Amino acid sequence: MNYRIITRIIGRILCVEAVFMLPALLISLFGGERGAALALLVTIAVSAVIGVLLALVKPTRPGFFAREGFVTVGLAWIVVSLFGALPFFISREIPSFMDAVFETVSGFTTTGASILRDVEVMSDGLLYWRSFTHWLGGMGVLVFLLILNPLSDKNTGEGMHLLRAESPGIKASKLVPRMKDSATILYLIYIGLTVLEFLLLVIGRMPVFDAVCLTFGTAGTGGFGVLNDSVASYSPYCQWVITAFMLLFGVNFNIYFLLLIKKYRFALKNEELFVYVGVVAAAILIISISILNRFSTVEETVRAAAFQVASIISTTGYSTADFDRWPQVARTILVALMFCGACAGSTGGGAKVIRVLVSFKAARRSIYKTMHPNSVQIIHVDGERLDDETVGAVGAYMLVYFIITAGAVLLVSFDGKSFETSFTAVVACLNNIGPGLGGVGPMENYAAFSWFSKIVLTLSMLIGRLEIYPILLLFIPSVWRKIHR
Amino acid sequence: MNYRIITRIIGRILCVEAVFMLPALLISLFGGERGAALALLVTIAVSAVIGVLLALVKPTRPGFFAREGFVTVGLAWIVVSLFGALPFFISREIPSFMDAVFETVSGFTTTGASILRDVEVMSDGLLYWRSFTHWLGGMGVLVFLLILNPLSDKNTGEGMHLLRAESPGIKASKLVPRMKDSATILYLIYIGLTVLEFLLLVIGRMPVFDAVCLTFGTAGTGGFGVLNDSVASYSPYCQWVITAFMLLFGVNFNIYFLLLIKKYRFALKNEELFVYVGVVAAAILIISISILNRFSTVEETVRAAAFQVASIISTTGYSTADFDRWPQVARTILVALMFCGACAGSTGGGAKVIRVLVSFKAARRSIYKTMHPNSVQIIHVDGERLDDETVGAVGAYMLVYFIITAGAVLLVSFDGKSFETSFTAVVACLNNIGPGLGGVGPMENYAAFSWFSKIVLTLSMLIGRLEIYPILLLFIPSVWRKIHR
Repeated sequence: MNYRIITRIIGRILCVEAVFMLPALLISLFGGERGAALALLVTIAVSAVIGVLLALVKPTRPGFFAREGFVTVGLAWIVVSLFGALPFFISREIPSFMDAVFETVSGFTTTGASILRDVEVMSDGLLYWRSFTHWLGGMGVLVFLLILNPLSDKNTGEGMHLLRAESPGIKASKLVPRMKDSATILYLIYIGLTVLEFLLLVIGRMPVFDAVCLTFGTAGTGGFGVLNDSVASYSPYCQWVITAFMLLFGVNFNIYFLLLIKKYRFALKNEELFVYVGVVAAAILIISISILNRFSTVEETVRAAAFQVASIISTTGYSTADFDRWPQVARTILVALMFCGACAGSTGGGAKVIRVLVSFKAARRSIYKTMHPNSVQIIHVDGERLDDETVGAVGAYMLVYFIITAGAVLLVSFDGKSFETSFTAVVACLNNIGPGLGGVGPMENYAAFSWFSKIVLTLSMLIGRLEIYPILLLFIPSVWRKIHR
Repeated sequence: MNYRIITRIIGRILCVEAVFMLPALLISLFGGERGAALALLVTIAVSAVIGVLLALVKPTRPGFFAREGFVTVGLAWIVVSLFGALPFFISREIPSFMDAVFETVSGFTTTGASILRDVEVMSDGLLYWRSFTHWLGGMGVLVFLLILNPLSDKNTGEGMHLLRAESPGIKASKLVPRMKDSATILYLIYIGLTVLEFLLLVIGRMPVFDAVCLTFGTAGTGGFGVLNDSVASYSPYCQWVITAFMLLFGVNFNIYFLLLIKKYRFALKNEELFVYVGVVAAAILIISISILNRFSTVEETVRAAAFQVASIISTTGYSTADFDRWPQVARTILVALMFCGACAGSTGGGAKVIRVLVSFKAARRSIYKTMHPNSVQIIHVDGERLDDETVGAVGAYMLVYFIITAGAVLLVSFDGKSFETSFTAVVACLNNIGPGLGGVGPMENYAAFSWFSKIVLTLSMLIGRLEIYPILLLFIPSVWRKIHR
């Protein structure tokens, strides 16, 4: 394990985090929030000093492989979360450090699960920082580092291994040959969509501060808001804008790139996109029918259904209605969408549509093979052959994913909450959604869990966002051994 | 598709079923239960006539392959259930035919889920028949046919394909070269254990009729009892006997065969057995601790914990305590055991310990492969190499299994019951357990579901018992085409 390179990268990340806290500091100073400003200032200073010291570590030898990539990503996210939690804790706006870490991890992983019972008493500076963690975490902390800094010009493996470990999906693909350019293009698309949503919300007369925070929450598919009723009290126009952008941020960004360079045919060949759109349309239709009698107009019904479907499948977690009180069939569809999640290569979480799609194809193949034991069947995605190793990896991923779900539900159930609450709390955290059903429904929060459950749920959020391995590998002793076998 | 051979086999099965109803008829006649006796008599006559007519169909050509095997098993189980339901319906002891079919499928699939609110008003003849379906379904209806009748001497493929389609587990193994002998040995072990349990219960002063029915329910890992409180009112001794036999019937019968022929070393090399015993011990320990304060003595606590653990992991479904009211951690462990299930080659249901074991090994391998992308790792079970195709098949099975679970929960949730009730009802039916939590807890029943949900749950029971494919293939149009591709 090349500890020196890992240390250096984590140092740089801390410096980036310190810089990103400056706008929050300015907002606090401007708004006369003394406690928040002081807390942010202390955190920035501490992060910058420790960051610079770590970044000064010189690597004694090259060598950065898949293992180092995973470990760096796993550690970097934990470090960033611990430092990111400091302002909440120091300012006493979140008095418990465990809760502050939960809230920050929830931010960076774009989960949006909150332990705050009352969001509206928070200072603007920290509300801004809380929402900004969504934006940064959505596209990836280390991917951002790649733009600033090609790490080392000689060893291009570093960037690839980091990108691979941090990006969601079954295959990390580079848009263009150079890693740094790929990362830059992704972030430019991301910034473009973010600005567009912000402008549309401001045109709809949403207050500028709210628009900034909600746009960050939508872009990262996070879900932190600035009002206690999430998005329910904004205008129908604003709700429709947010619905559209939640869905847009759940799409694979490669498709936007293909559209930008006018390769429309490639963009439309994407099977995952079709399944995503189909599932969204079907879910909105069924849920709309099931809740027809609860609203006065059809527009209101469809808006509520579409908002909640977009919010859950994109794993954002905003709400305009208390879907915990909806008919059981609507609730079950929403739970199923939690597992499904958004497209690979988007800012959304969940198992990803592509994995569900490949799983269905693998299932169909196994049924066919049962009938015709000696046949050879090949799985195609987007018209291209998918090799057996990738199919096997998807199957293994889903298995590990279900095992982790079951294990986490078991651990959380020591708190003695209802099965529904324990189960959906884990599902909502592991898939980076935010609200679940019952005790963690859209009008509830995570404050009532024990610190033990909060640790389990915090780890679940990290495991979900980083797609299992970067966090899981940290707990395997053999990973830390010096020598490669 | 060789429809003629399939028809002939189903005819024979019906004849066997008619014969097996005779003891129930005798009990009814002996007890002066006129309604039940008449209903049984009519059913026996109808089954026998139709059975003989179908059995007379002469195959025009040979040819019986995997596809025919699956279809025959799927159809045979549905036909046997429909005819088996007639006595309940004709006697009006279960007035709705849908409910009668639900109860009978629950019997044959050894689920033990009941729509009866009051078992104790049923006639003895029909209670006997209800419990006997567990015993017959436990080891397999078609396996029994193989003993009576080698089907055709020339085409040994027939027996193999039927056994493979009906037996649980990842590989159907023959104990001895001849199929008929294997089936006979299995049934002899089965009968031996059944008689032993019956004797031990009678020694414990359980009434003979109760002992017969409860032994059938234990042997098939079914769970139908003859009292409304299941097993709670029998003596501690009887509860311990039933606990032990529930666990014994959840063990792979191949191990008993190996012990009989004194190949102790092979028997003890069985990894699945070790995992099974380990999981049972751990679950009893944790649950005992969590319910310590609810009982007056340690024996009582451990007995309650051991009984419920044995009942759920063996997928029997008897109960001595209302575990729905136990602490959440105990309830979650029981739900996890529902998914796990018993050993392959036993009469128990669930995903089977071996599949869970292989899944964990595949998961571990995929984690290792993430670290070392170019390594080749082989999965061993019982010290032998497991080929990639089998590992892939296990993965695909688990995926189909989770997809079916999710789909069935969605369909059942149209009834508007709580998430906990819908979810555990499906899990309890699909894994052939019987009771779940909440509205289908051990002190509740399935009567309140709509006919639509009952159809979904009935199919789930069949899908679970026959390990998915025999039932699923019936719904695929291409299976019914005449020509093999």
